[in-house]
Amino acid sequence: MKHGANIYKYASQIGCNYDEILDFSSNINSYHPKLTITPTSDMIVKYGDSNHTKLKDSIKNRYKIKKNQIALYNGATSAIFALLESLKQKKVYLYTPLYGEYEKASLESKKEIHKIDRFKNLYKKPKKDSIVVFVNPSTPDGKYYDLEKLFKIWEKQNATVILDESFLEFENLKSYRTKIESYKNLYIIQSFSKFYSCAGVRIGAIFSNKQNIKNLKTPMWNLSSFDVEFLKQRLDDSKFVKKSRKLHKRNKKNLIKILKDSKLFSKIYKSDSNFILTKTADSKKLFEYLLEDKILVRVCGSFDNLSDDYIRFGVKDDKLHKKLSNSLKIFKSVE
Amino acid sequence: MKHGANIYKYASQIGCNYDEILDFSSNINSYHPKLTITPTSDMIVKYGDSNHTKLKDSIKNRYKIKKNQIALYNGATSAIFALLESLKQKKVYLYTPLYGEYEKASLESKKEIHKIDRFKNLYKKPKKDSIVVFVNPSTPDGKYYDLEKLFKIWEKQNATVILDESFLEFENLKSYRTKIESYKNLYIIQSFSKFYSCAGVRIGAIFSNKQNIKNLKTPMWNLSSFDVEFLKQRLDDSKFVKKSRKLHKRNKKNLIKILKDSKLFSKIYKSDSNFILTKTADSKKLFEYLLEDKILVRVCGSFDNLSDDYIRFGVKDDKLHKKLSNSLKIFKSVE
Repeated sequence: MKHGANIYKYASQIGCNYDEILDFSSNINSYHPKLTITPTSDMIVKYGDSNHTKLKDSIKNRYKIKKNQIALYNGATSAIFALLESLKQKKVYLYTPLYGEYEKASLESKKEIHKIDRFKNLYKKPKKDSIVVFVNPSTPDGKYYDLEKLFKIWEKQNATVILDESFLEFENLKSYRTKIESYKNLYIIQSFSKFYSCAGVRIGAIFSNKQNIKNLKTPMWNLSSFDVEFLKQRLDDSKFVKKSRKLHKRNKKNLIKILKDSKLFSKIYKSDSNFILTKTADSKKLFEYLLEDKILVRVCGSFDNLSDDYIRFGVKDDKLHKKLSNSLKIFKSVE
Repeated sequence: MKHGANIYKYASQIGCNYDEILDFSSNINSYHPKLTITPTSDMIVKYGDSNHTKLKDSIKNRYKIKKNQIALYNGATSAIFALLESLKQKKVYLYTPLYGEYEKASLESKKEIHKIDRFKNLYKKPKKDSIVVFVNPSTPDGKYYDLEKLFKIWEKQNATVILDESFLEFENLKSYRTKIESYKNLYIIQSFSKFYSCAGVRIGAIFSNKQNIKNLKTPMWNLSSFDVEFLKQRLDDSKFVKKSRKLHKRNKKNLIKILKDSKLFSKIYKSDSNFILTKTADSKKLFEYLLEDKILVRVCGSFDNLSDDYIRFGVKDDKLHKKLSNSLKIFKSVE
C-alpha cells in the first residue's frame, strides 16, 4: 500500500536526491533501530521454504492466532487484490474515506462499488450478502472505531467483512482479529510495513478462519527470502514494539503541538494512529512552500469526502519535526 | 519457478536439516561468490521506486533491450501467471516436456490446453491464432533449439509466442529476444534465479515490444527493495558472468563423466544448459539410495512424455560431484 506521495517523482521535480526529501507523506514508524540482519548465501542462493513455516510461527506468536489462520502475500496491496478476486459476492461497500487500493481492487475484480460516508452515515445498512471494507484505525484521519454495533449490522446483513488493521499497533488498541472464529466471513488485512518500519520489505497477510484461508488463492511463488528473514526477526523483537510505542507517544504529542502552535489549521483531527489530518484553506500554497523546503506532505483531495484543503502529516522524529516547525513558522510569518 | 524438489520436505522425511541436503534437483548456478551487498536502512524503511528505474537500467545493459520493453514481476512464475491471464487467446500449445508452471497458469486462466511432443512432432502446426509456449533451452533435457523454422510456422499460424529463455545464459547461445520488434506477439520469459544464482531473490521479467509491455498487467505493488538492489548489483557484475561460464563448462564436463563412468544410465542426454537428463530402469531404487546419502535428485515422472525412469541432475561443484560420484559407485557395487 502506498500511503504517501511518490518521493522519487517530487525529488526529480525539485531537482534533489530522493533521500533529501523529508517525507511526512508516508506513515512508516519513525523508529529505525540499527539493522542486525546479515544476508547469508543460503538466503540468496536457495529456494526458500514455500510454506514460510518459521515466519508464520513468529506471526502466530505476535498476533495470537493459529498458523492455519494466516495467508501471506507480496505485501498488503497484493493481499487486497487477491482477496477481492477470490470473493464471489458482487457488491462492495467501502466505508469512506479510506485508501485507494480497495476501490482499485474492487474495480479490477469487477465488483459493484457502493460507498458509505463514515463521517455522516456510519450506521447505514449495506445490502444483504455484500462485502464491506472498513479500515480501523481509519485513514487519513486516524480515528479508531469501536465496531461492536457495526458488527451487529454486518451480521444481520450477512456481510463478508474485510477489516484492515494495518495501523492498529502504534497504540494499545483492541484488535477484532479475535472474532475470526466467531464471525464466519471476517478477513483481517495486516500490513507489516507501517508499524514494523519496513516499506521496502514486501510481505502482507490475511487472517481468517482455517476454512476461509484454505479457500483463498495465495501466490504460487515464494516471498523474498531476505524479506521473510527480516520480518521474522523484527516480529520476534519485543523491544522494538515497546520502544516504538514509547517514542510514538512522545513524537505524536510533539507533532500535534507543532501543528497547533503554527495556527495554520482550522481543524486538527484527533488521531489514534501515527498520522494527523488537518484542514486549512491555504493547503495548496502550504504544500508548495513545504516542498521547496524539501518537506513532502500528503494533500488529501484524492480521498472520498475530503478535498485538497486537507493535509495529512505522518508522525516523525525530533529532527524532522523541528524542520517542519521552522518551515511552518516562516510560512505563517510571510503569509 | 520451482525446478527442483522440495528440500524442506525431504529433509524432514529423512530427519536432517535442510542445509545438509546436497540438492542436485535444483538448477541454480553453482557459482556463489561472497556476498558484497549490505542492507541499508533506506532499503528497509522507505518505499522503493515503483518504476524500478535503476534495476531496469541494469537489465537494459545486460540484455541489450530498451527499458520500455521490460515488465517486472515477483519472479518468473508470477510473470507466467500474469501473462497467460493477460492474453485473450483461448488455445495454448505447450511444447512438451516443459516445466509444470505453464500448464498450471493455463488452467488458472481457463485456456484450452494442447500439447506438442517436441521429441516426436516438433513441426506439428498449432491451430491459427493460438498461444504457443516454448522453453529454450528446454527442460528437463536441456536441448537448445534453432527456432527459425518454428518461427516461420508460428508466424504463418499467427501465433502469440511465449519463449522462456531462463536457462540460456550458462552457455553462449543465441537469444531470440532480438525478435521482439519484428515478431509482433513475442513474449520472452526471463528468470534471473538460475544463472544469477539467487532463487531466494524473487524477481522475474517479461521482454516484449513497447506496446505489448504497456498492455500487460504488472503488479500494483513494489518488489522487495533488497531483492531489487541485489539483482541490480549482480547484473552489473560482468566478472560474475565470465566466471560462471568458465566454471559451468568445467563442472558440466565433470558431471557428465561421473554419470557415464557410473555405468548406471542407459541414456545420458546431450544438454545445452546446467542440468543433465538421464534414463535408468533403477530410477526408484537410485533415488531412495541417494536420498539416504542426503543427495536429492529430480525424478521426472511429472513431466509429459517422460516417466520415473528419467532422473535429472543439476550441474554442481567439485565437492558435491565427488559425493555424488562416491554414492553412485557404492550403489553400483551393491546393486
